[in-house]
Amino acid sequence: MANICVKLPDGTVQEHPENTTALDVAKGISDGLARAVVAAEIDGKVVDAFRPLSELSDEAEIPLTLLTNRDRTALDVLRHSCAHIMARAVMRLYKGVSLAFGPTTSGGFYYDFDLEHKISEDDFAAIEKEMKAIIKQGEPFERFMLTRDEAVDLCRDLNQDLKVEHIETGLSAEESVSFYRQGEFVDLCRGPHIPNAGKIKAIKLLSVAGAYWKGDSSGRQLQRLYGTAFFDKKELAAYLEQLEEARRRDHRVLGKKHGLFALNPEVGSGLCLWLPKGARVRVTLEDFLRKELLGRGYDPVYSPHLGRVELYETSGHFPYYRDSQFPPLYASEAGSLLDAMTQRLESGSISKDDEDKLIAAAEVLGVNFDGYKPSASADDKKSWIHGWQTANERYLVKPMNCPHHAHIFKAQQRSYRQLPLRLFEFGTVYRHEQTGELNGMLRVRGLTQDDAHIFCTGDQVEEEFRATIELTKFVLESVGLDDYQVQLSLRDPNSDKYVGSQENWDRAESALRGVLQDSGLSYGEQPGEAAFYGPKADFMVRDCIGRSWQLGTVQLDYNLPERFKLEYVGADNAAHRPVMIHRAPFGSLERFVGMLIEHFAGAFPLWLAPEQVRILPLSEKSTEYAIAVAKQMEEAGLKTTVDLKNSKVQAKIRDAQLELVPYMAVVGPQEAEAGHVALRDRIDGDLGAMPIAEAIARLQQEVRERKVRQVVKSNFTQIEDDGAERFEG
Amino acid sequence: MANICVKLPDGTVQEHPENTTALDVAKGISDGLARAVVAAEIDGKVVDAFRPLSELSDEAEIPLTLLTNRDRTALDVLRHSCAHIMARAVMRLYKGVSLAFGPTTSGGFYYDFDLEHKISEDDFAAIEKEMKAIIKQGEPFERFMLTRDEAVDLCRDLNQDLKVEHIETGLSAEESVSFYRQGEFVDLCRGPHIPNAGKIKAIKLLSVAGAYWKGDSSGRQLQRLYGTAFFDKKELAAYLEQLEEARRRDHRVLGKKHGLFALNPEVGSGLCLWLPKGARVRVTLEDFLRKELLGRGYDPVYSPHLGRVELYETSGHFPYYRDSQFPPLYASEAGSLLDAMTQRLESGSISKDDEDKLIAAAEVLGVNFDGYKPSASADDKKSWIHGWQTANERYLVKPMNCPHHAHIFKAQQRSYRQLPLRLFEFGTVYRHEQTGELNGMLRVRGLTQDDAHIFCTGDQVEEEFRATIELTKFVLESVGLDDYQVQLSLRDPNSDKYVGSQENWDRAESALRGVLQDSGLSYGEQPGEAAFYGPKADFMVRDCIGRSWQLGTVQLDYNLPERFKLEYVGADNAAHRPVMIHRAPFGSLERFVGMLIEHFAGAFPLWLAPEQVRILPLSEKSTEYAIAVAKQMEEAGLKTTVDLKNSKVQAKIRDAQLELVPYMAVVGPQEAEAGHVALRDRIDGDLGAMPIAEAIARLQQEVRERKVRQVVKSNFTQIEDDGAERFEG
Repeated sequence: MANICVKLPDGTVQEHPENTTALDVAKGISDGLARAVVAAEIDGKVVDAFRPLSELSDEAEIPLTLLTNRDRTALDVLRHSCAHIMARAVMRLYKGVSLAFGPTTSGGFYYDFDLEHKISEDDFAAIEKEMKAIIKQGEPFERFMLTRDEAVDLCRDLNQDLKVEHIETGLSAEESVSFYRQGEFVDLCRGPHIPNAGKIKAIKLLSVAGAYWKGDSSGRQLQRLYGTAFFDKKELAAYLEQLEEARRRDHRVLGKKHGLFALNPEVGSGLCLWLPKGARVRVTLEDFLRKELLGRGYDPVYSPHLGRVELYETSGHFPYYRDSQFPPLYASEAGSLLDAMTQRLESGSISKDDEDKLIAAAEVLGVNFDGYKPSASADDKKSWIHGWQTANERYLVKPMNCPHHAHIFKAQQRSYRQLPLRLFEFGTVYRHEQTGELNGMLRVRGLTQDDAHIFCTGDQVEEEFRATIELTKFVLESVGLDDYQVQLSLRDPNSDKYVGSQENWDRAESALRGVLQDSGLSYGEQPGEAAFYGPKADFMVRDCIGRSWQLGTVQLDYNLPERFKLEYVGADNAAHRPVMIHRAPFGSLERFVGMLIEHFAGAFPLWLAPEQVRILPLSEKSTEYAIAVAKQMEEAGLKTTVDLKNSKVQAKIRDAQLELVPYMAVVGPQEAEAGHVALRDRIDGDLGAMPIAEAIARLQQEVRERKVRQVVKSNFTQIEDDGAERFEG
Repeated sequence: MANICVKLPDGTVQEHPENTTALDVAKGISDGLARAVVAAEIDGKVVDAFRPLSELSDEAEIPLTLLTNRDRTALDVLRHSCAHIMARAVMRLYKGVSLAFGPTTSGGFYYDFDLEHKISEDDFAAIEKEMKAIIKQGEPFERFMLTRDEAVDLCRDLNQDLKVEHIETGLSAEESVSFYRQGEFVDLCRGPHIPNAGKIKAIKLLSVAGAYWKGDSSGRQLQRLYGTAFFDKKELAAYLEQLEEARRRDHRVLGKKHGLFALNPEVGSGLCLWLPKGARVRVTLEDFLRKELLGRGYDPVYSPHLGRVELYETSGHFPYYRDSQFPPLYASEAGSLLDAMTQRLESGSISKDDEDKLIAAAEVLGVNFDGYKPSASADDKKSWIHGWQTANERYLVKPMNCPHHAHIFKAQQRSYRQLPLRLFEFGTVYRHEQTGELNGMLRVRGLTQDDAHIFCTGDQVEEEFRATIELTKFVLESVGLDDYQVQLSLRDPNSDKYVGSQENWDRAESALRGVLQDSGLSYGEQPGEAAFYGPKADFMVRDCIGRSWQLGTVQLDYNLPERFKLEYVGADNAAHRPVMIHRAPFGSLERFVGMLIEHFAGAFPLWLAPEQVRILPLSEKSTEYAIAVAKQMEEAGLKTTVDLKNSKVQAKIRDAQLELVPYMAVVGPQEAEAGHVALRDRIDGDLGAMPIAEAIARLQQEVRERKVRQVVKSNFTQIEDDGAERFEG
C-alpha cells in the first residue's frame, strides 16, 4: 500500500500510511490536539476528521487543516451532529417519526419531522434529557455509502418515506449516497460530523414551529424543532442571554408598543404601514440623506412604481427573476393564461390536450390565434405568444429602480462634461418574498431603497467608489453604527460567467481594493462572490448585541449600460458607454429602521427621535406656559408635545420615560415666573432649571452633533444573523 | 286653446297664446331683445328659443330665462349649431361622408366623420369658405320628431349607417327621437340650436385628428375635425391668441427643452420620469408643504403602493371602479381568467360552452372546481369564484391612499383626545386613464397626491374645514396663484342617493357655507354636485392666460369611516365613528407642476427654480474664484452652478437667459480682487457689482418671501379647460 503526503498549514509535509485520518495526523502531533479536533478542512471543504484522507483528496500533498472548537465552522459541524442526536431522542420518545431534513442555521440547528404527537415546549425537558443521555454515552458517528437502490431499501426498512421520496426524486442524479450511523440511529446525510457525541458540551431546545415538506405550502405539514449547541456551557449561556436581549428588542414588539409601524392582512403581508412616529424617523433619515446627497453632487429624480414588462425584458430581470417578483398586471384578460402557457412550453410540461384547453379559453377571452401553428416548435409558439403579449399592455410593479434610472439617463443627450451623473431616489420596490421569510420590517415585500445610480466613465470609477464608501461610512456613523467591516466581492478568476472585458474587471477590482486599503477600513475579500455584472462592496455592521447585518452596498455594473445601450459623447466627439454604480448606504429604509429599533431598543437618539421633548406642566395652572414653551421649542425645530393629562407630574415623568422620550421639561408657576424649564434627561435624569433658550440651545446642539448616547455596547459574541442554512441534513 | 303663463327672472308673469316661443316672448319685450336671443333656459335646462314653450314645461307658470350672446351657455348652443354647419360644408365638398357625433367642448366643437378623403389642414380654407357661405344664407334650424322605425328609415335613406347603428343600439330605449334640419342638412340630434345661422359671427377650424367610433379602439376609425365659433370676431381673435400663447407655454415642449420630465414608451404611457430639474422643483414643493403641514399639526405616514383586492372591496372601490384602475395582480395563474368569468356571469353574457372552456383551462392552471355547481345561479357561481379568489392573493396598485390611511387610523386604539388626527403622505396612486386622454404631466396614469386624511369628530368638521381652506389658499398664493374661486358642491335635496344622516349633511353643509362666507373668498354653490359620501369644495384657479384649473380639493366623507368601521373612544367612554376629510392643496404633483410650467412658461420664480444662480467667470483665469463663490452660495442654500465653458461671457449670459436661470453672477479679476460679484437678474438685467454676502442676502430674501415676479397677467377671457363635453351631437 502506498503512503500519502499531508501538507499542514504551516507548510510542513508529512508522510502517512494510506488509511490515515485527520485524527491520526492530530494524534501524531499530540494527544491533546487529537482530543481537540472536531473536523478537518481540505481545499476549503469541511470533512469528517475520522475518514481516511485518501478518500478525500487526490492531491499529491493533501492540504489539511485541523478544525478545533475555536473554529466557527467546527461549531456548525457540532450542531449538525446535534441535530441527529435530537432526532434520535425524538424517535426514542415518540412513535411513527418520519424524518425530513435537519440543517444548521446561524444560531443553531433544526430538524423537520412528521409525527402524530404535537411537540410543545412542555416536551422540551424530556427531549433534552434523552439528548443528554445520548451525549453522555459518547458514541461515535460512522459513515457508509449505499447505491440508490440499497438506500431506498434501507429507508423503507426504517419506515422513512420522506427519505425514500427524496432519494427517488431529489437525488435521482446520484449513483450512491452517504449515510451516518450513531448507535441505533441511521440517517441519509451528506455530513460531515464530529467524531463522537462527547464533543457536545451544552445543548438547548429553543422552539417549535410548523413547516412544509420541501417548503411547498401545498405539501405535507411538518413540525420544525429548533435547538442550539456549543462547545462549552458559558457560550450557551451567553447565547441564550443574547437571544433574550434580542427578544426584548424585537422591533415587531417595540414597533407596535411605540406606534412605529403596523402590518395588516387586508393591506397585505410584508406591506408596511408607517405609523406617524415611525414615519417621523423615516422623514428625518430621508431629509438627512437628501441634504447630504445634494451637497455631494447628486441629482434627485422620481420614477413610477410600474414599468412595462418589456422594460424588464430589456434589463434582463424578466422572466428570469419572476419567482421573486410580484406577478405582472395584464391589461388583457388572457394575459396571465398566455404567460402560464409560455411557462409550460418552456418547461416542456404541457400536453396537447392542455394546450388545446388553454387556447380555447384564450379564444373566449378574445385572443385571435391566427398565425399560431399547433404543429410548430415550442420556441415558435412561445415567440408567437410573446408577440401577442408585447402588443398588449403588461406591467410589473418595479422590483428595482435601475431600469427607470437608465431611461432617465437616456432621456437627454449626455456629454462627458455632465459625468459623473449621480441620480438618487427614495424608490419603493416590490418583491414577492415567501410568506415564511417575512419578518416585520426586516424582511418585507415593499422596500424603499435609498437608491442611486452613478453613471461615469471608466476613469471615474475609482473616485466615485471612494466617494460612495466615504458616504456610507459617514451615514452609518451618523446613527452610531461604527462597528463594521467591508466585504469586497470579487470575480472567480477561473470562471467565464462575467460580462465586461477582462481589462475592465482588472482595473475595477484593483481600484476598489486600493480605495479600501487607503480608507483604513477593516475589509475582507471574497473571490467568486461578485455578481456576474460587476464587483461589489458590502458593509457588514455589528449591532450592540453582537449581531451582524448587511447594510450599505456599492455595486459596479457593466451589464445594464450595455443592455440599455447607454451612451455619452466623449471629449473625442465619439459615443462611449458609461459604467453604472448602484449604491444604497441604508440599504432599505424598512430594514434600516427595523434594525435601528432593535439596536436602540426603541430609544432613538435625540436627532432621530419622533418625539424629542415633552413639556410636563405641574398642574392645570401651568397649561398656558407649557403651551408657550412648546411653541418656542417647535419653532426652534424640536419635535415637541405637551402632556395635558390630569395627572401628577411623577406619573407624567414615568409615562415619558416608558415612552422613551429623550427629554422632558417640567414647568410650574416658578418656572413660568422665571421664564425657565426644569429639564430632565431620560438617561441622566434631572438637569435642573434653566432659561428656555438655554434648554433649546442644549437640545439643538445635541441634534446638530447627532449624538448617540444611549447604546451600551455589550460583549456578546458576534453572530451572523443572515438566516442562511449552513449544512444540509 | 288655453293660454300659457310665463314667469320671467325678474318675477313678472305674462300670459301668452299656447304656441308662443321664447322668441315671441322676447319680441313682446323688444325687437332688439328678440334679435339678441340665442336660446332659452327653463328650470336649468337649455332649450331652443324657437320651440313652443308649452312643449317644454308642464308648469302653471313656466320659469323662462332668455339667453343672449352674453351667456356662456348660449355660446355652447352657437357652437353646437356650428358643428352642424361644418358637417354640412364637409358633405357638400366630399362624397360618402358618414356622420358620427358632433359635440361642443370647452373651447369649441368637433365632428367625427367617416369619409374616404383624408382631411388635412390644406382643406381648412375650402371648408371654412363653404361654412361662411352657409352662414351668410342665414337659414333657420328646424326640429322634428320621428319614431325609432321612421328615424332608422330616414337615416338609411340618407346613407348614414353610423346613425342607424346608434338609433338601433344606443337609443334602443327611446320611443321617438329628434332631428334638426337646416337647408338640405338633416341630423339626428338632441339639440338645442340657435334660431338661424346668422347668429354666427366668427368661425375657425383648428385641427384634425383620428378618433374611434364610440371611443372603442377596436372599432371603426374616424376623422375628428375641430373648430371654434364666437359671437364676434374680436373674441375669436383673442381666443386664437390665447391658443397660440398656450402652445408657446406647452409644458410638454418646455418639459423636454428644459429637462424637467420625460415619458418613455418602454416605461409606459402616462408614467412620468422626473428628470433632475423637474425633480428639484418637486423636492422644493414637497419640502415646503411638509414643513407647513408639520407646523399645522399634521402627522406624516407612508403606505405601500399595493393593497389586497379585499382592501378595495371593503372600501367599495372594487369592482365598481375597475375600468379606471390598473388591472389586479393575481398570485394564481388562473386569477384573471376567473375574474373574466365573474364579469361575464355578472353581465349574463356567457354561454354554457364558453363557461365550460374557461373551467377546463382553469383546471389546467390548477383550480379545483369541487363545490362549483354548473347548474347553480350566476350569483352562486360568482360567490364560489369570489371565495376562491379571496383564498388566493390578488392585489391592486393603489388607485387612492384613503383605504391605507383608514387602516393606519385603525392600527392603534384612538381616543377623542388624539382627534383631529391628520395623516399626510405624498402618495403615488395609479389609474388606468384611456390612452387618448393622456397629456404630458397634466393627465397621467401615475400621480402623486399631496394627500391627507383628517379624522375628526362631527364637532370638529367646521374648524378643520376652515383650516384646510386656509391651508389651500396659503399654498396656492405661495406660488403666486391668487386668482381663484371656490366651488362648493352640495347635495341634491331631491335625491336619496347620499350616505350619512340628513342631520349630518345639514350641519356639514351649513358649516362649510359659513366658513366660506367668513373667509371672504369668492365662492359659488353647486347643488347636486356633491359626491354621494359628502360635500366638497374645489379651488378653481385661473392661470395667467385665463385658463381655469381645478386644483386644491377638500372633501368630507361619511362613507369610508362606516365601511372600515373606524372608531374612537369618546369622553363618554363609548365608541364613536369619526368623520373623514380628504384634502390635497396641490391636487397632484404631476398636474400641479405641469400647470406651473405653463403658467410660468417654464421660468419658475426663484424659490422654485431648479437652478437659482449661475456663476459666469469672464475667462479661465477666474475659474477658481467662480468655484469659491459657488461654494459659498451653495452653503447658503442656493442652487448654484458654474458655467466653465470656454466661451465669451455674452454667450454665457445668453445661455443662462435662454435656460431661464433667475440670477447670474459674472466674475472676473476685478470682482475677485474686491470679493464681489456682478449680479444679473434674468428679468431686470444688470444689478451691478456687490459683495458676495450682499448678493446672497438679496437672493435669500427673495426665496424666503417666495416672491413671484415674472408672471404678466393677461387679459385673456376666462375659459374652463376641463376637457368636458357639453352638448352631444
